[in-house]
Amino acid sequence: MVGCTLEFDVLEPSEIALQIAVAGPSRETLQVTGADGPIESVEVDRQHVVRAPAGPLTVTYQATVPPRTAVRPVTDLDRIVALRPSRYCPSDRLGGFAAGEFGTEPNVPTIAAWVFQRLFYQGGSSGPSTDAVDTMLSGAGVCRDYAHLVVTLCRASSIPARVAAVYAPGLSPMDFHLVAEAVVDGRWTVWDATRLAPRPTLIRIATGRDAADTALASTLSGSVILNQTEIFAIAGGDLPLDDHQSPVSLAH
Amino acid sequence: MVGCTLEFDVLEPSEIALQIAVAGPSRETLQVTGADGPIESVEVDRQHVVRAPAGPLTVTYQATVPPRTAVRPVTDLDRIVALRPSRYCPSDRLGGFAAGEFGTEPNVPTIAAWVFQRLFYQGGSSGPSTDAVDTMLSGAGVCRDYAHLVVTLCRASSIPARVAAVYAPGLSPMDFHLVAEAVVDGRWTVWDATRLAPRPTLIRIATGRDAADTALASTLSGSVILNQTEIFAIAGGDLPLDDHQSPVSLAH
Amino acid sequence: MVGCTLEFDVLEPSEIALQIAVAGPSRETLQVTGADGPIESVEVDRQHVVRAPAGPLTVTYQATVPPRTAVRPVTDLDRIVALRPSRYCPSDRLGGFAAGEFGTEPNVPTIAAWVFQRLFYQGGSSGPSTDAVDTMLSGAGVCRDYAHLVVTLCRASSIPARVAAVYAPGLSPMDFHLVAEAVVDGRWTVWDATRLAPRPTLIRIATGRDAADTALASTLSGSVILNQTEIFAIAGGDLPLDDHQSPVSLAH
Amino acid sequence: MVGCTLEFDVLEPSEIALQIAVAGPSRETLQVTGADGPIESVEVDRQHVVRAPAGPLTVTYQATVPPRTAVRPVTDLDRIVALRPSRYCPSDRLGGFAAGEFGTEPNVPTIAAWVFQRLFYQGGSSGPSTDAVDTMLSGAGVCRDYAHLVVTLCRASSIPARVAAVYAPGLSPMDFHLVAEAVVDGRWTVWDATRLAPRPTLIRIATGRDAADTALASTLSGSVILNQTEIFAIAGGDLPLDDHQSPVSLAH
Repeated sequence: MVGCTLEFDVLEPSEIALQIAVAGPSRETLQVTGADGPIESVEVDRQHVVRAPAGPLTVTYQATVPPRTAVRPVTDLDRIVALRPSRYCPSDRLGGFAAGEFGTEPNVPTIAAWVFQRLFYQGGSSGPSTDAVDTMLSGAGVCRDYAHLVVTLCRASSIPARVAAVYAPGLSPMDFHLVAEAVVDGRWTVWDATRLAPRPTLIRIATGRDAADTALASTLSGSVILNQTEIFAIAGGDLPLDDHQSPVSLAH
Repeated sequence: MVGCTLEFDVLEPSEIALQIAVAGPSRETLQVTGADGPIESVEVDRQHVVRAPAGPLTVTYQATVPPRTAVRPVTDLDRIVALRPSRYCPSDRLGGFAAGEFGTEPNVPTIAAWVFQRLFYQGGSSGPSTDAVDTMLSGAGVCRDYAHLVVTLCRASSIPARVAAVYAPGLSPMDFHLVAEAVVDGRWTVWDATRLAPRPTLIRIATGRDAADTALASTLSGSVILNQTEIFAIAGGDLPLDDHQSPVSLAH
Repeated sequence: MVGCTLEFDVLEPSEIALQIAVAGPSRETLQVTGADGPIESVEVDRQHVVRAPAGPLTVTYQATVPPRTAVRPVTDLDRIVALRPSRYCPSDRLGGFAAGEFGTEPNVPTIAAWVFQRLFYQGGSSGPSTDAVDTMLSGAGVCRDYAHLVVTLCRASSIPARVAAVYAPGLSPMDFHLVAEAVVDGRWTVWDATRLAPRPTLIRIATGRDAADTALASTLSGSVILNQTEIFAIAGGDLPLDDHQSPVSLAH
Repeated sequence: MVGCTLEFDVLEPSEIALQIAVAGPSRETLQVTGADGPIESVEVDRQHVVRAPAGPLTVTYQATVPPRTAVRPVTDLDRIVALRPSRYCPSDRLGGFAAGEFGTEPNVPTIAAWVFQRLFYQGGSSGPSTDAVDTMLSGAGVCRDYAHLVVTLCRASSIPARVAAVYAPGLSPMDFHLVAEAVVDGRWTVWDATRLAPRPTLIRIATGRDAADTALASTLSGSVILNQTEIFAIAGGDLPLDDHQSPVSLAH
């Protein structure tokens, strides 16, 4: 069972796009409560666009996710998009570095292990404008920075890669989590270079090129402050072990 | 009538994604000729993915495009994506600058005029890694740099914006062209801060966040050199006048 | 009367270069007290290089500065160095922007006023790697960011410029302060785009290309943590008024 | 014997600072010939500041340099300055990377060998705004880029480092050359990660933080175009062998 509660201050009538719902089938509830006046919530491609008047706004989401193993195939369009550089994964800048570090036969497990070894997990060491180059240079980051660096080094090595925002049972402290997906042997596989949560029990929320695509909450118009976030993610049964070295796929 | 001829050297069996076909309905032909051996071409979302053996490869595309005015509406998903920062349009970095320059009531014609006035068109002044910040600082660029700067300043002003790759009758010297699209009064409108071709006769090829999404040719696997490109774009009748200040929409 | 107290934790035998002493003649005292064992302090070009054993280290500096008006002339070597780009003032990147904004007859008061108007003073908005481009884009900064942006725009306009670290009577909250110096009518003049302290009572500590040259404390070898800094700067008599628009020179 | 001929177009009365004279004692001649009107040349710290009227300007320099071995000691001030980040050597950005790559006992020969192995020498692969981070990412550069990367990785490893512009007998094609100097065992030692010229016969021109400090010709005022540069550098006798791995010092 996974879910979250978000508390906003809406400073003027605003539109907010939320990415908190799980990607695949689930039994879920979404509650939006706020100031007097009409609150509208429409779903677009598993995002929820909330139109709210000024005042406090509380969003509560909860989902029970059945076991599933269906993994989407790698399409030509997936590969085209997942090889492009993006805001936080400027892979076009470091082709030479990747070739020097990973050679002519680059592989994803080696890249993910390199990122795990080279980075130091440190809350507050990065900000919203930090990109994968900044992270590689400073040697420190949080989950999004680890994911961005794996994705960037894969793309720079001509391996299609993207990010997935996930609920992560076992993560401590609990938070929204970001991991990398890369094509291995023609399949999408998931890599968490922080090694902070086992991959088999991750639950996908959103998929994108980098964190610009998976923001929890984006203001489309108006002005909004996100005051508080509570998240929970509980696996049914014990958490699985994960060596973080063999390929694992993330269901849709 | 628009079209192009691309000549490649394919150094090993390769997959190439081409974005040369016009976006909407047309009467078109695509010819792919190369070395002996199977050449496969599949269409994905108006891109052509060509799988070719090593050797020379020639692609010839030609389309006759009927007059059309159908413009797609601005969807919620359009707005969500078109507000995000991207590789060459890092709008998250310059919110303060945009607010200082364009004030609390930013508008797209003013932004496009500012870019027109501030930049100097200069072939060779930028490269494949140049982003909109580099361009604003250096004050010089080519069409892609103009489009990126308009898009970036719009997004930094909370105005959804994206790029369109187009055939541009009247452009001199003839080339593939990149322009900006931004939401004005709830509609997608097109802006060419280079002011080098009239907007009403532009023919859309691809739409994207920035030039990373609209590359003419991308290597998905293998190794390929693009040796030569010839483009033509002819409007039926005289070219229209364009003041480049009033809103114009680009058909899909 | 100006001065400071710095408290360090020296984690292993270390060498620290301090830039806290005023640049010109004064009646001054420097006290260095620390763990048992030899502490050496040598003066190099008004910097104090302290060699200390592991343990706590306290440095107390105090100076009474006589009134003075002697301003060093602008030498050829000054101009050569003050036109070069530097770490936090990458003026080579924004020649085009400066020409577009300040025209063919750029002048320093206009540049300083532009920086004052465009930036928002905000503690914590920048970090040790923030350069003048970052600051111009984000529109926010602290004193060092204001000084860097003035210097960068001057150099990009072919006006020699540098920074000065100063004691700043009247600054609130009291802190070490960084201001810009630029050549106007053949003389070094001082500009504080934060406008937070009157220029006539500033007392120069160090002069440099940017903040990389004026760090309060630099570790030359070993490992050191600066725990606490107290600063005071008191002008004799009332603080002068300063319109921050006419040229003022800073004594050496 | 070393020397050069520089041909300028002076577009308006201008001041140019030249760094072409060798650093130490030599038997040298400098000829400046140009348009009618007064041409002034003054020497400042081994730079020549030429004030010339509009028109063509030719500068010819030639020096015979006696054998010398005097190497200046490493002063405290040297170390203070050589640990600071600079425009093209932003060492503050990559402390984490350097620690991950070179460990807790970094040493200069290892760093120089790493740069030699990782970079590909390619004329035209970099420009005047390229910094050491760009170079490390792209994996290609020319002599200045090699020198900048060695310097940056040394500083990021707490090893004082700087650049030296040199005449380089044996370099092919002949050009002004830039190399790195770093402190090894308390002495300045010179490293050329391009390995394109033997170090013992290098002749120092200028010393600085990075290429911003050693520009061949800088315009202090006015407007100047450098049209042509011819350089020669001939060692007396056979060129020495150089393994580019043991420490060598560069005379002043």
